[in-house]
Amino acid sequence: MTNTRTETDSFGPIEVPGDSYWGAQTERSIGNFPFGPREQMPIEIVHALGYVKQAAARVNARLGNLDPAIAEAVQQAAGEVARGDLDSQFPLVIWQTGSGTQSNMNANEVIAGRANERLTGTRGGKSPVHPNDHVNKGQSSNDSFPTAMHIAAGIGVHRRLLPALRIIHARLADQAQRWDTIVKIGRTHLQDATPLTLGQEFSGYAAQIEDNIARVEAVLPRVMRLAQGGTAVGTGLNAPKGFADEFAKEVANLTQLPFTSAPNKFAELAAHDSLVELSGVLNTIAVSLSKIANDIRLLGSGPRCGFGELKLPENEPGSSIMPGKVNPTQAEMLTMVAAQVMGNHVAVTVGGLQGHMELNVFKPLIGANVVRSINLLSVGMESFTERMLDGAEPDEQRIADLMNRSLMLVTALAPEIGYDNAANIAKHAHKKGLTLKEAGLELGLVDEETFERVVKPEMMLGR
Amino acid sequence: MTNTRTETDSFGPIEVPGDSYWGAQTERSIGNFPFGPREQMPIEIVHALGYVKQAAARVNARLGNLDPAIAEAVQQAAGEVARGDLDSQFPLVIWQTGSGTQSNMNANEVIAGRANERLTGTRGGKSPVHPNDHVNKGQSSNDSFPTAMHIAAGIGVHRRLLPALRIIHARLADQAQRWDTIVKIGRTHLQDATPLTLGQEFSGYAAQIEDNIARVEAVLPRVMRLAQGGTAVGTGLNAPKGFADEFAKEVANLTQLPFTSAPNKFAELAAHDSLVELSGVLNTIAVSLSKIANDIRLLGSGPRCGFGELKLPENEPGSSIMPGKVNPTQAEMLTMVAAQVMGNHVAVTVGGLQGHMELNVFKPLIGANVVRSINLLSVGMESFTERMLDGAEPDEQRIADLMNRSLMLVTALAPEIGYDNAANIAKHAHKKGLTLKEAGLELGLVDEETFERVVKPEMMLGR
Amino acid sequence: MTNTRTETDSFGPIEVPGDSYWGAQTERSIGNFPFGPREQMPIEIVHALGYVKQAAARVNARLGNLDPAIAEAVQQAAGEVARGDLDSQFPLVIWQTGSGTQSNMNANEVIAGRANERLTGTRGGKSPVHPNDHVNKGQSSNDSFPTAMHIAAGIGVHRRLLPALRIIHARLADQAQRWDTIVKIGRTHLQDATPLTLGQEFSGYAAQIEDNIARVEAVLPRVMRLAQGGTAVGTGLNAPKGFADEFAKEVANLTQLPFTSAPNKFAELAAHDSLVELSGVLNTIAVSLSKIANDIRLLGSGPRCGFGELKLPENEPGSSIMPGKVNPTQAEMLTMVAAQVMGNHVAVTVGGLQGHMELNVFKPLIGANVVRSINLLSVGMESFTERMLDGAEPDEQRIADLMNRSLMLVTALAPEIGYDNAANIAKHAHKKGLTLKEAGLELGLVDEETFERVVKPEMMLGR
Amino acid sequence: MTNTRTETDSFGPIEVPGDSYWGAQTERSIGNFPFGPREQMPIEIVHALGYVKQAAARVNARLGNLDPAIAEAVQQAAGEVARGDLDSQFPLVIWQTGSGTQSNMNANEVIAGRANERLTGTRGGKSPVHPNDHVNKGQSSNDSFPTAMHIAAGIGVHRRLLPALRIIHARLADQAQRWDTIVKIGRTHLQDATPLTLGQEFSGYAAQIEDNIARVEAVLPRVMRLAQGGTAVGTGLNAPKGFADEFAKEVANLTQLPFTSAPNKFAELAAHDSLVELSGVLNTIAVSLSKIANDIRLLGSGPRCGFGELKLPENEPGSSIMPGKVNPTQAEMLTMVAAQVMGNHVAVTVGGLQGHMELNVFKPLIGANVVRSINLLSVGMESFTERMLDGAEPDEQRIADLMNRSLMLVTALAPEIGYDNAANIAKHAHKKGLTLKEAGLELGLVDEETFERVVKPEMMLGR
Repeated sequence: MTNTRTETDSFGPIEVPGDSYWGAQTERSIGNFPFGPREQMPIEIVHALGYVKQAAARVNARLGNLDPAIAEAVQQAAGEVARGDLDSQFPLVIWQTGSGTQSNMNANEVIAGRANERLTGTRGGKSPVHPNDHVNKGQSSNDSFPTAMHIAAGIGVHRRLLPALRIIHARLADQAQRWDTIVKIGRTHLQDATPLTLGQEFSGYAAQIEDNIARVEAVLPRVMRLAQGGTAVGTGLNAPKGFADEFAKEVANLTQLPFTSAPNKFAELAAHDSLVELSGVLNTIAVSLSKIANDIRLLGSGPRCGFGELKLPENEPGSSIMPGKVNPTQAEMLTMVAAQVMGNHVAVTVGGLQGHMELNVFKPLIGANVVRSINLLSVGMESFTERMLDGAEPDEQRIADLMNRSLMLVTALAPEIGYDNAANIAKHAHKKGLTLKEAGLELGLVDEETFERVVKPEMMLGR
Repeated sequence: MTNTRTETDSFGPIEVPGDSYWGAQTERSIGNFPFGPREQMPIEIVHALGYVKQAAARVNARLGNLDPAIAEAVQQAAGEVARGDLDSQFPLVIWQTGSGTQSNMNANEVIAGRANERLTGTRGGKSPVHPNDHVNKGQSSNDSFPTAMHIAAGIGVHRRLLPALRIIHARLADQAQRWDTIVKIGRTHLQDATPLTLGQEFSGYAAQIEDNIARVEAVLPRVMRLAQGGTAVGTGLNAPKGFADEFAKEVANLTQLPFTSAPNKFAELAAHDSLVELSGVLNTIAVSLSKIANDIRLLGSGPRCGFGELKLPENEPGSSIMPGKVNPTQAEMLTMVAAQVMGNHVAVTVGGLQGHMELNVFKPLIGANVVRSINLLSVGMESFTERMLDGAEPDEQRIADLMNRSLMLVTALAPEIGYDNAANIAKHAHKKGLTLKEAGLELGLVDEETFERVVKPEMMLGR
Repeated sequence: MTNTRTETDSFGPIEVPGDSYWGAQTERSIGNFPFGPREQMPIEIVHALGYVKQAAARVNARLGNLDPAIAEAVQQAAGEVARGDLDSQFPLVIWQTGSGTQSNMNANEVIAGRANERLTGTRGGKSPVHPNDHVNKGQSSNDSFPTAMHIAAGIGVHRRLLPALRIIHARLADQAQRWDTIVKIGRTHLQDATPLTLGQEFSGYAAQIEDNIARVEAVLPRVMRLAQGGTAVGTGLNAPKGFADEFAKEVANLTQLPFTSAPNKFAELAAHDSLVELSGVLNTIAVSLSKIANDIRLLGSGPRCGFGELKLPENEPGSSIMPGKVNPTQAEMLTMVAAQVMGNHVAVTVGGLQGHMELNVFKPLIGANVVRSINLLSVGMESFTERMLDGAEPDEQRIADLMNRSLMLVTALAPEIGYDNAANIAKHAHKKGLTLKEAGLELGLVDEETFERVVKPEMMLGR
Repeated sequence: MTNTRTETDSFGPIEVPGDSYWGAQTERSIGNFPFGPREQMPIEIVHALGYVKQAAARVNARLGNLDPAIAEAVQQAAGEVARGDLDSQFPLVIWQTGSGTQSNMNANEVIAGRANERLTGTRGGKSPVHPNDHVNKGQSSNDSFPTAMHIAAGIGVHRRLLPALRIIHARLADQAQRWDTIVKIGRTHLQDATPLTLGQEFSGYAAQIEDNIARVEAVLPRVMRLAQGGTAVGTGLNAPKGFADEFAKEVANLTQLPFTSAPNKFAELAAHDSLVELSGVLNTIAVSLSKIANDIRLLGSGPRCGFGELKLPENEPGSSIMPGKVNPTQAEMLTMVAAQVMGNHVAVTVGGLQGHMELNVFKPLIGANVVRSINLLSVGMESFTERMLDGAEPDEQRIADLMNRSLMLVTALAPEIGYDNAANIAKHAHKKGLTLKEAGLELGLVDEETFERVVKPEMMLGR
């Protein structure tokens, strides 16, 4: 990298790559936090910083707080960041200052550098557009960065998580309906129990997802609140009057999502309870998905030595050593993703609890984990729906075989012959390997007519 | 314990203590799960089982499903359980069957035993009131026990958690108002920053608690839903028509709380997502309280070698070795409680994710942890408010001393003399141990009149 | 409670129950932390405080630091605490001051009160034996309480955890041997795979437990270290020369366990890394047990519609609604216990990370969770071994049926006829519902002689 | 990407990029798990797969199980993978099949494709070197992938984690020595306590790290064990006799690290307890580092309104809005890293507990989190040592000022004038804002000579 140029900050001059847009503070952070490219700040937070700077420039211009030509250059360049056109200019990692100051400065520098290029033909530098005085005007990292965290989370929830939840819900609800007449053995404690339909079973999964949609919607009011306008400690020192509300409106306009200005800025800088709360909901979704994916893997276990009630789609060869083997890989992916989200939730919790006075300095940790969890769940649910649920089919023969074999159909006899007699029939059948009917007749505890009339799985569905 | 009587279940006869109300299955469980009295099922779940049995008896009677005399005896005895009159009759531990069957049978047996005593003068037994056929009528452990979990959680949230949140919120909001004119140093990154008022600082804490009240209210619709009516696998087999809705109304009537019947019973037996969600909110509250209690302990650190901005109440001698020492014990209690709630949340999550098919068999674990977390937070917040917040007083002299010493007041000079000059003054003052004014005059970067006019903390509050 | 007496501390006089041994500070703590009896400090820590005071009195006497008569009275009374004779005198809860000062004072007061009774006939008071000046001599809560935590943990590990691990290991190792010739289907991804023996399967469980014994032993050197001698901040101010080493020897003598004096007392007061580490090992044991218990529940699933390879013992009636149902309740107990231990581990971690300067003030939280996890795992493993493993028996007929049905035996043909041909046979058999042999012959890909010679599960065991 | 070639697997043909080395199964996985490049399998596991394939080829050749020319081509290409020369050929993500089969096949295909290029001049394909028949010979994903996880973890622990622990330990131990005579105020409960030296304080940190080195070494025996040789279910079907031991020796030879063959392969495939255990130790390290970094940030708080006892190095501008502000960014980085490791630990735990029968299918999750935690801690500790500890200096004037102000020096008077009189002096001084000496003389409880003789902080250090 022989081609460099000199940039400066209050610590003095430093060489940066000649083709980069970033400046001194970004370069310094690269050197100070050597975690490498696999630990980069999530790109969604970078894009959100683009929205922050774009909205701030527009509002500053509108409030007469920034020269219109400079504001225009800033908001143009910031728009490029928001759109993802300058992703390569954001090399910084998650593990930096806990306020996200360096990523905020990365955005300030890149936007200034790009605006200057547009205005003067020369990339980088601090004139005519200055990273601090213009791009960061009326802001502090302490309010800009958490604002970007909430914008990234809010966009992720609206554009990725909720759509993915609705996709998997629609599929499960459809299967609940399609399979509503397939009567099957129920299992409690993993032991044979009274019957239900496959559709009823899937209606439970659909209901879990429906509740999760409601959960996400219930936390949105607090996720969509922005800290911007609090500046350094929450008082809003150096931000113009009205800035906070105008800014939130501008972000809502840019993203077409209902962002608002947080009612108390002190709380918003010093704590991230609302992201801890959101993470708790992501954790709940992960719990639901673990149950659903695990059940489907159990239902599809076999093909000959497991439950074998569902035939799962074959997406790839399963084993290099066992010919013809197919594995429930999408369920495995989804349960792994769920475990990661549960882990991320603990990281968010541990970060969230350790704020000190006017600032929580675990911001990049919290932001990165929330964004990652949203992405993992969203892609996971979509892929699982498309590649696992869509192709799953009941093995109706196997389902009927198992159900007819079940001893728990004896439950239907209890009101006729008493709980104790019914229990004796079940135990006798179990011990001798008989059918329930054989056992009942052999013990003389029920006659054939009664048995045939009463032991009808399709009448045991609570309808 | 020579005085015993014989009780029986389908496994045969077994001796139980002669003065107990419980029967064979309870006694068997005592022997099978020898964890001892410190691991008993939370009494709140026992009381909730009382409500379950009371409501079921009333509804069964109303629907013509149970002999009125027996129903009356059952609902009377169940009412005693709900009121706490029979607490000593519930010796079973959390660590039993994962459906809570044995605690459900404990309730069935004790209520039958007490009802029989009332009707016949003889304690215990199965006649005329039978634990299964009458007390458990139209129910299964699989729906009764999760119903009791939700009743216990719903009562705890309404009668303990929300009131405690409102108590601490009122105190913090009051302090925010009372201390609104006390200007103090802000701290970000634990480093001196621009000023705010002590009232503004406390307004952040109050806002955190206010949000937590909203969080709790947002999850209530799902917490107040009852599984009852699903019986063994969710189909409602053996429950009379209309039982679920009538039952929920009866519980609402008994508790005067808005319980409802869950829309999908399969999900309600097979998963406990709504309690995982509630636990996530309790985790968020714990995070908030950690921040607040820790801040107050920092503000009260000293008396001579810490921040020393708050004088904390003295509740007890602090040290056996250091005379006159006083410690922030209520803050320590509250942060420990918070850590326990975070741990309980992981236990609930791990239990919640492992349901299999029609039943999650981590019910007692989940119920016990949610109830414990509610209790710990509620008592913790009340005690902290009464014994720590109520007696805390600002040390206004110390607050003023620190604030006037702060170098970050230089921020107010930046718009007048530029960021770089302001930084030079701050660095010069820091290096030489001067006041800002001394440093500014010595460097010739500001004149006295300007300094006095501009560097006014009370003008830096964003008002 | 009309019968009281007056006790005093530096805060003044206070009434305590007349028949109690405790004094003013204990009584004050009861009032200041109203969590109730279900949240009491684990009795194991109380007993350990008895050892602390007993050892301290003996060492103080030996070093000429305490009047022999007083020392004798103290060590006698402390011995009663250690033996559990005075358990009712320890009403304090976990949620108190974070240094455990109040439980330390509870021990000091009860021991003084009992020693005074012995010496003067009058219960309680501070003379001739004084709680601080004599019972607490040369100590601070800051070193006594963590010492008690380590003693309680060390005793629990040696007397409960390791024996329980050895019991379950012996049983699993025995089953591995007894069942070494029972060839069964293997399952990977919950899908049918190549065979192994039931004994091989159980040898894996035994190996897991064996490793856990090694894990526990590996952390013992750091668990058996005692903080005593550090007094208030780790310097040992006011403790006599040689106190720390003599004390550790005395505790080792009293408990017959290899306790030592910690090499750095500053670390031992300010952090509890070694208990976090131990908790991590308990977490690992919980993970192992979850896997084992869950497998056994899967193997025992059925009786007709699951895997059905193991017949599990029947310990109690399983269902009030389904006659004859038996559930794997011991496995459910054990997996719930495991989930609690995982949650406790997070609580310990969160408490462990928040020490400040010379003292971690999450001591009771950490101690209580470690002790509880040890107890839960120990009782859980013993009960699971006795009531689940001991009575489990293979269903050899079912095992053979499943294995012979398996398509994965085709793996043995691959070296003879090639992976692709073998895969075709497996897929054809699966599609048409044929045996492997039928499918192979029908496709003409293998002849009968070859098939019979090669497809022998007993030759596929890697022996 | 118009330039493609056709590759095939048992699912049929598929187009792959013309310049790639990978084959059909890799390409299929890219399509089936669309998580994108930020979720790629850690490169350390890829490199470890290189070692696996290299060692397997060498051992197969040695045992006469593989044609020497093919073996040589395979081990050459595998060596390139191990060295990192082919990193761009490993596009697969963590979230795939839970056995890591697809990453194993990615390695098999790339190595075959590269070997074929070397032997024939044509990149890719299956001849003469076949991904399954040659590169994967004697292996299954079920043993290869966990072997790679342990190799990656073992290398990470030896080459990154232990060196980083030793670096930070050396620095802290050095500071403990250098600062051993700087007497300062101790703080317990964040309240002023008796004195100690700054060196003693740092000796506690050094001791914590020393213990962590011992912890890591204690788990190494189980981390360095390899599953290879178990093949599909642990029996070793299709692996040549002696393969497991020879393989482990070869890996030890290649890496110059003491890898061994695991004694029980069933446990090694079906569970990952040893990585859960290692993760528990990483969690403990994270707890230690949180304490240390947080203390140093507290000691450096200020510069005027905090503790101010340490002057921390200035690495970058701290604030865009507050001129001259410097923040403890390395401490913030390290505490964030620690929080992530704690979260990762829960993810590993949740994955570890969910194995089913012969296979745990959370392998990529577990491997990725363990490797990431090792890396984060290693880089974090090195950077913190170099950029924070190395430049930290005590502010001796400030330290002396605070210590002399402290009321807790009164503790030294207690043996002379009694605990109660000493307490009175401290309280009087506190209330009136006096020095201890002034208060003592004013109350007439001590004379000047006694005070001067006794109240000497340098005599209160337990030496």
